[in-house]
Amino acid sequence: MIDLRSDTLTRPTDEMRQAMARAEVGDDVYGEDPTVARLEEKVAGLLGHEAALFTPTGSMANVLAVRTLVGVGQEVLCEASAHIARAELGAHGAYTGLTMRTWVHPRGQVDLDMIRSMHAPDMGPFFVRTAAISVENTHNFAGGAVLALSDLRDLRELATGLGVAVHMDGARIWNAHVATGVPLAEYGAVADVMAVCLSKGLGAPVGSLVVGSADAIAESRVWRKRMGGGMRQVGVLAAAGLHALDHHVERLAEDHAHARLLAEACGVDPASVDTNIVVAPRPDAPAFVARAREEGVLVSAVGPTTVRLVTHLDVSRDDAEKAAAVLARLG
Amino acid sequence: MIDLRSDTLTRPTDEMRQAMARAEVGDDVYGEDPTVARLEEKVAGLLGHEAALFTPTGSMANVLAVRTLVGVGQEVLCEASAHIARAELGAHGAYTGLTMRTWVHPRGQVDLDMIRSMHAPDMGPFFVRTAAISVENTHNFAGGAVLALSDLRDLRELATGLGVAVHMDGARIWNAHVATGVPLAEYGAVADVMAVCLSKGLGAPVGSLVVGSADAIAESRVWRKRMGGGMRQVGVLAAAGLHALDHHVERLAEDHAHARLLAEACGVDPASVDTNIVVAPRPDAPAFVARAREEGVLVSAVGPTTVRLVTHLDVSRDDAEKAAAVLARLG
Amino acid sequence: MIDLRSDTLTRPTDEMRQAMARAEVGDDVYGEDPTVARLEEKVAGLLGHEAALFTPTGSMANVLAVRTLVGVGQEVLCEASAHIARAELGAHGAYTGLTMRTWVHPRGQVDLDMIRSMHAPDMGPFFVRTAAISVENTHNFAGGAVLALSDLRDLRELATGLGVAVHMDGARIWNAHVATGVPLAEYGAVADVMAVCLSKGLGAPVGSLVVGSADAIAESRVWRKRMGGGMRQVGVLAAAGLHALDHHVERLAEDHAHARLLAEACGVDPASVDTNIVVAPRPDAPAFVARAREEGVLVSAVGPTTVRLVTHLDVSRDDAEKAAAVLARLG
Amino acid sequence: MIDLRSDTLTRPTDEMRQAMARAEVGDDVYGEDPTVARLEEKVAGLLGHEAALFTPTGSMANVLAVRTLVGVGQEVLCEASAHIARAELGAHGAYTGLTMRTWVHPRGQVDLDMIRSMHAPDMGPFFVRTAAISVENTHNFAGGAVLALSDLRDLRELATGLGVAVHMDGARIWNAHVATGVPLAEYGAVADVMAVCLSKGLGAPVGSLVVGSADAIAESRVWRKRMGGGMRQVGVLAAAGLHALDHHVERLAEDHAHARLLAEACGVDPASVDTNIVVAPRPDAPAFVARAREEGVLVSAVGPTTVRLVTHLDVSRDDAEKAAAVLARLG
Repeated sequence: MIDLRSDTLTRPTDEMRQAMARAEVGDDVYGEDPTVARLEEKVAGLLGHEAALFTPTGSMANVLAVRTLVGVGQEVLCEASAHIARAELGAHGAYTGLTMRTWVHPRGQVDLDMIRSMHAPDMGPFFVRTAAISVENTHNFAGGAVLALSDLRDLRELATGLGVAVHMDGARIWNAHVATGVPLAEYGAVADVMAVCLSKGLGAPVGSLVVGSADAIAESRVWRKRMGGGMRQVGVLAAAGLHALDHHVERLAEDHAHARLLAEACGVDPASVDTNIVVAPRPDAPAFVARAREEGVLVSAVGPTTVRLVTHLDVSRDDAEKAAAVLARLG
Repeated sequence: MIDLRSDTLTRPTDEMRQAMARAEVGDDVYGEDPTVARLEEKVAGLLGHEAALFTPTGSMANVLAVRTLVGVGQEVLCEASAHIARAELGAHGAYTGLTMRTWVHPRGQVDLDMIRSMHAPDMGPFFVRTAAISVENTHNFAGGAVLALSDLRDLRELATGLGVAVHMDGARIWNAHVATGVPLAEYGAVADVMAVCLSKGLGAPVGSLVVGSADAIAESRVWRKRMGGGMRQVGVLAAAGLHALDHHVERLAEDHAHARLLAEACGVDPASVDTNIVVAPRPDAPAFVARAREEGVLVSAVGPTTVRLVTHLDVSRDDAEKAAAVLARLG
Repeated sequence: MIDLRSDTLTRPTDEMRQAMARAEVGDDVYGEDPTVARLEEKVAGLLGHEAALFTPTGSMANVLAVRTLVGVGQEVLCEASAHIARAELGAHGAYTGLTMRTWVHPRGQVDLDMIRSMHAPDMGPFFVRTAAISVENTHNFAGGAVLALSDLRDLRELATGLGVAVHMDGARIWNAHVATGVPLAEYGAVADVMAVCLSKGLGAPVGSLVVGSADAIAESRVWRKRMGGGMRQVGVLAAAGLHALDHHVERLAEDHAHARLLAEACGVDPASVDTNIVVAPRPDAPAFVARAREEGVLVSAVGPTTVRLVTHLDVSRDDAEKAAAVLARLG
Repeated sequence: MIDLRSDTLTRPTDEMRQAMARAEVGDDVYGEDPTVARLEEKVAGLLGHEAALFTPTGSMANVLAVRTLVGVGQEVLCEASAHIARAELGAHGAYTGLTMRTWVHPRGQVDLDMIRSMHAPDMGPFFVRTAAISVENTHNFAGGAVLALSDLRDLRELATGLGVAVHMDGARIWNAHVATGVPLAEYGAVADVMAVCLSKGLGAPVGSLVVGSADAIAESRVWRKRMGGGMRQVGVLAAAGLHALDHHVERLAEDHAHARLLAEACGVDPASVDTNIVVAPRPDAPAFVARAREEGVLVSAVGPTTVRLVTHLDVSRDDAEKAAAVLARLG
């Protein structure tokens, strides 16, 4: 089986497993796990922020990150198919109690005019005010689209002018970085608080991080405990993340190449595939998924007429070519 | 002072006060207030629904109404400047824990294409699904705009087809009814659950209602108590509402005429004023508000460059003409 | 029918209705209702606090009051049958997200030893700390018991020493005041924030107040709006409250005398009846309720083997004597 | 340094690390991690329940477990120093929105009379009703006390009779089992839903489980995702848990013996030490902690005048004896 359902499916490599087995650990609730500390410091440094915090999942990282910026009775603006709006089971409303309003962009991009017109200034205590704008880079449900750097810079400027914060869901920021060559810290400079993930393209089994100011991270540490995310000798997982950062970032270029190859096989313009996700229209997505499975290729239906293919560490060049042949045949 | 800040400002008339003083009352938490029961039955009947529930405010009515349709981890779609999104202090997130996504329409209208494209079907337990669509008629922040009936009917059909519910914030449904001649029950037929208000154009001092099926209302009765809205001998307020329904609905036409008169004075096209609200651009809204106040006319700034004028029961023809003269002079 | 189910059942008197009909009103969300302002000032003054806030119900007043003192991840300690624990539908957990721990006292009294031993000091961010202690005076489910003033003073001292706040649910503080002669302000001095009610023994149709510092009240004003309690020309209700404070406080002594009379008829020691509530054991409470109803007397079952009788403004001496005769006969 | 602060501090052994490095894994959000599945099945089996669910922490396991039993507006009764009340940062109120009431027992035991008197039956929709009773076995803040089995059986019978559920926080159920010889499944039979932990005495680096009916676990799986606990190739952690269950249960007897030895050194009656936790009064707990640290022994202050010592996998017989000598010397 060639598994193209998600880049969350990667299994740790042997080298990664050895790094995990060797990891020096301590009780991270007590702040005593040296491997976690190293990972947090490294990731904060890569993104040009003061501090970072390890979390069990990207969803928890996003919830913690956004809640440092947006309180009860305040709102976050985001694109309508953002992961925080669509795929975190409503945790931002359920647990943070915030309000969300959305703009729509087929490629998940920043829409500065829309943000400007939607922005709600502080009109006194009886109105919801915009506290943060959230962007997702790369944008999962927009097919791994990279957000335009110029838009992000304009957003940063606009947000600063408005006195509003910026959150970046950078679960796949590594893919954006590799696809564009933009340094991670340039993306980091756009956001007040970020969430980044180690267990998607990077291939670590578990783990994400909140990245931001020392204050935001200290606050998130307490709320992480409240959410049930305060794990103990979690250096065994952090070691996988450190290994991934050292060995699995640059190779994302291969995933991107494989994705373009699959796009072509599916009749999707490869130029529209920025990174490792291909979204293709099919008249009957569930039927297509079933037929591909029979041929040894696993893909997802992400809508009644939409299939999604994701390349990753466990999909070799050879796998990609075989899958392309199958998908081309299925039409 | 001629007060055009809001139609919530109306004071009860002498006749209304007499109706209140005469009201037969009981403990409504025990379900024993006959005047409340009469009001609830009357309003449910007018809108063609099974039952209704008196609430202290329109905000509580909206929160209760929406929560009968949308649970934790589900979403409501609405227009981006809807009252439920902008003006209820985030109560839907804070208390119901729901997710909200929005489409943008400058006149607050239903956008069927957008709703169709934003609609999230049930994709299993790990995705947020659309449970309800909310519309506001008339639409406050869109300047009292009436929603097009044909759009509402199409929405009803679309929603039924998708298995999604419709909520209508009908705080000013009376204005829509009077402006268009569309029977209240035709508007009511569009929605599964509605909220309507007695203390805006209708001139009652306090009170709104949730309107819907017997089940939705029974459930709302319990949640009303939890929210602290279970009042006792509230027939004294319900009597004002009954009086308003008997005497203050048709006269809303006068408010609409006054609003068009004010629009003209402010350089706003009267044809764009559907009901009793005029929204006018001004370069410096707070300064305009201050100058109008000096001339004896109270208006609101609803944005840095936007002023709002609202006509109502306590603004006579004469008041409207005087205010128009002042506003025209201020430019 | 003689209705002894609750003192919430009182209907406004003719004089009260006239006061309501005459009330000068304004939009209280804008802070412009002079009658509400007068009531808030008067109640704050009576209790020796800086400010007060009108609310539609006692439940909302308690939720708002407690949340000025206790945040998410903090706790309030209270007696196990307190109204805030048992009768507000879990609103303190559901809406404020606080933690509650309880001590048990058959007469609802302050138990200083228990409070001392339960008190959780600040042990860092990973433990719940005690933020407030809540007491209820008179205590509804303990049969209208008055809290001992010496205990309350000791509690105040203990709480101050511990750096913990005190909330008093004073829904029936008027009854405690009349029963003991302790000035209202002496009770007020015990609490940082209080809730008091106008629609129980005092006989107003609707209304309670939060009472506390100017800051606590300003904060509560915003949260009242969020909870859907920001009503408009609510001076019509406040006028009833002002009338009640002027005319219905001292007469509570009559209710207390009637309650003792009923206690005797039910075989309950009248000396155990502090105010206007009688709690009597009956082998089959629902059956007793039904038989009393047949004889023209309405009482409540508040447990499988417990009935409750409450005297109030609408129960005259003659009513009380008739009811006593019926209850004595039923045995 | 001999570290007696907590049994959460244990580091994975070499054998455990090897088991982790060899673990067969898959994406557990897709339900495809075979090692997690094996662990969940094994733990459910040991406790005699249908199913189990891996969680990142014991706090999350408790929150998920309790919320299968207790909804908004309902209550859980527990002992006043229970971990769910004191040490989970208020998550049950903050995230589940439930109400908690407590009884006090110095040894954390079940108090059947208190439970009987506190139990709130269903009195209609306007009162909070008791939905579950929670017990903690062993009881952390009561010094690792084992709950009496006869009490637990009586509780089960009482709860069934009342129609109320039982939750057991079995974070240290393994210690209770080893200390008493009571089979795990006998403890399991007491509870409708349990939480158990692998990263305390058992020595796994990370992980807990919710244990209960297939329905409760299916529901918890969705809420785990919402809370941000849906991890991916988490078999690397589950492998540690499986290893711990195979090799670290029976050896808990050593920890218990070490704890008694330390108790004696601290002047605490060893007969009062049921398992691996010693709680000792000291006039100035923080000062005692500091002095012990200077002597190479780490202990915790869990109150101003209370120190806590916990034995575990990383404290050898030799360590325990050395620590005892130090503590005896400090007095």
